[in-house]
Amino acid sequence: MILARVIGNVWSTRKEESLRGLKFLVVQPVTLSYAEDGSAKLTEFGNSLVAADQIGAGEDEIVMIASGSSARQGLADHSIPVDATIVGIIDKETFEA
Amino acid sequence: MILARVIGNVWSTRKEESLRGLKFLVVQPVTLSYAEDGSAKLTEFGNSLVAADQIGAGEDEIVMIASGSSARQGLADHSIPVDATIVGIIDKETFEA
Amino acid sequence: MILARVIGNVWSTRKEESLRGLKFLVVQPVTLSYAEDGSAKLTEFGNSLVAADQIGAGEDEIVMIASGSSARQGLADHSIPVDATIVGIIDKETFEA
Amino acid sequence: MILARVIGNVWSTRKEESLRGLKFLVVQPVTLSYAEDGSAKLTEFGNSLVAADQIGAGEDEIVMIASGSSARQGLADHSIPVDATIVGIIDKETFEA
Amino acid sequence: MILARVIGNVWSTRKEESLRGLKFLVVQPVTLSYAEDGSAKLTEFGNSLVAADQIGAGEDEIVMIASGSSARQGLADHSIPVDATIVGIIDKETFEA
Repeated sequence: MILARVIGNVWSTRKEESLRGLKFLVVQPVTLSYAEDGSAKLTEFGNSLVAADQIGAGEDEIVMIASGSSARQGLADHSIPVDATIVGIIDKETFEA
Repeated sequence: MILARVIGNVWSTRKEESLRGLKFLVVQPVTLSYAEDGSAKLTEFGNSLVAADQIGAGEDEIVMIASGSSARQGLADHSIPVDATIVGIIDKETFEA
Repeated sequence: MILARVIGNVWSTRKEESLRGLKFLVVQPVTLSYAEDGSAKLTEFGNSLVAADQIGAGEDEIVMIASGSSARQGLADHSIPVDATIVGIIDKETFEA
Repeated sequence: MILARVIGNVWSTRKEESLRGLKFLVVQPVTLSYAEDGSAKLTEFGNSLVAADQIGAGEDEIVMIASGSSARQGLADHSIPVDATIVGIIDKETFEA
Repeated sequence: MILARVIGNVWSTRKEESLRGLKFLVVQPVTLSYAEDGSAKLTEFGNSLVAADQIGAGEDEIVMIASGSSARQGLADHSIPVDATIVGIIDKETFEA
């Protein structure tokens, strides 16, 4: 899974029927690295993408994203055409070690 | 899902039987970022690709694309050999916040 | 799907039994863009790859390639270990608009 | 599979129910190359990612990671929304040949 | 499928039970291009990866690799957590045309 920061959301009125009711967030991938003293650091990389959210992630939170067919396993109906889903919100303590 | 702008379409007379009747659009991936004042900005990235469309997206519209096996879930028959499908058209208001 | 130009073919005598009878072409990915006047332009990108072909694409033709599990849907037997299949030959008119 | 070095772990209190009990490690991809004299060399590349672990990999160990739908095959329940799983710990002798 | 050169192998004592008995080779991706006179040329690209082998590829041979869920189709048991499998050894004549 990649980590990403929630930076916004998109609206889509005309869409596949099965996507109705899903919330779509814009997320910016981030990579986690550690300094010599063990402190964690997040760095943005690549391009933002859109992920389905059923957990209730809020803006600026760091989330864990499952991609591909695994993204569908995180939804009630596994045949929804979604290829990126937020499967967890990372605890803030992770970045304060 | 990635966001992309519809920039054209392709025609294919000789193709897999199961692809008959599908519309194939050429789309250019775009990334969404936000300025300090909250205004949204779209930037093109990477190479154009071809996506199946059953929603009726028009030229210059920004769409949401499901890739891989999830692309097939957006079609009537899940065994059609397609790896990118337009699953939603993004509302213009998304980029005018 | 990505677009690609057929540039050659490979032979493999020692291979998975289920691959017997399949034709494997070497294809170079190309991206399609449009000039101000609407004329289409193809530009090579990335590295060549090998794709299964059951349509009969010829050298120099531009084809549409399905990747991942979708590549298997384009073959008679969906359990053949192939991750790229030519699913259509693009009409020359597409690039002469 | 890619090889990666275990560099940390993440905690997630709010997550998909099916992820409960899984351990999530932060891993940094590494590539293996060989010098003229046959000695192996590991070089970090790309961005760190998060992988599920059921083998008990420890910090600084080099692991083998299965991605995509294959990552789910490494878990007891194949419908858990995980797209990267540690499937093996590479023996230290591999890098001392 | 990508082409790759076999450059080594890895050993893993602690691994998923279902991986026992499989041979894991280190392979370096190569791209195939053709000169004006039709002669083929192989160029290394990207990072090495680990692929399962059931065909018996030897060091320095050029192989064809199926990735993702298709990699599992090349194994006796389709639920083995492997995302890259050698599915064919390319005939030397391919590069001597």
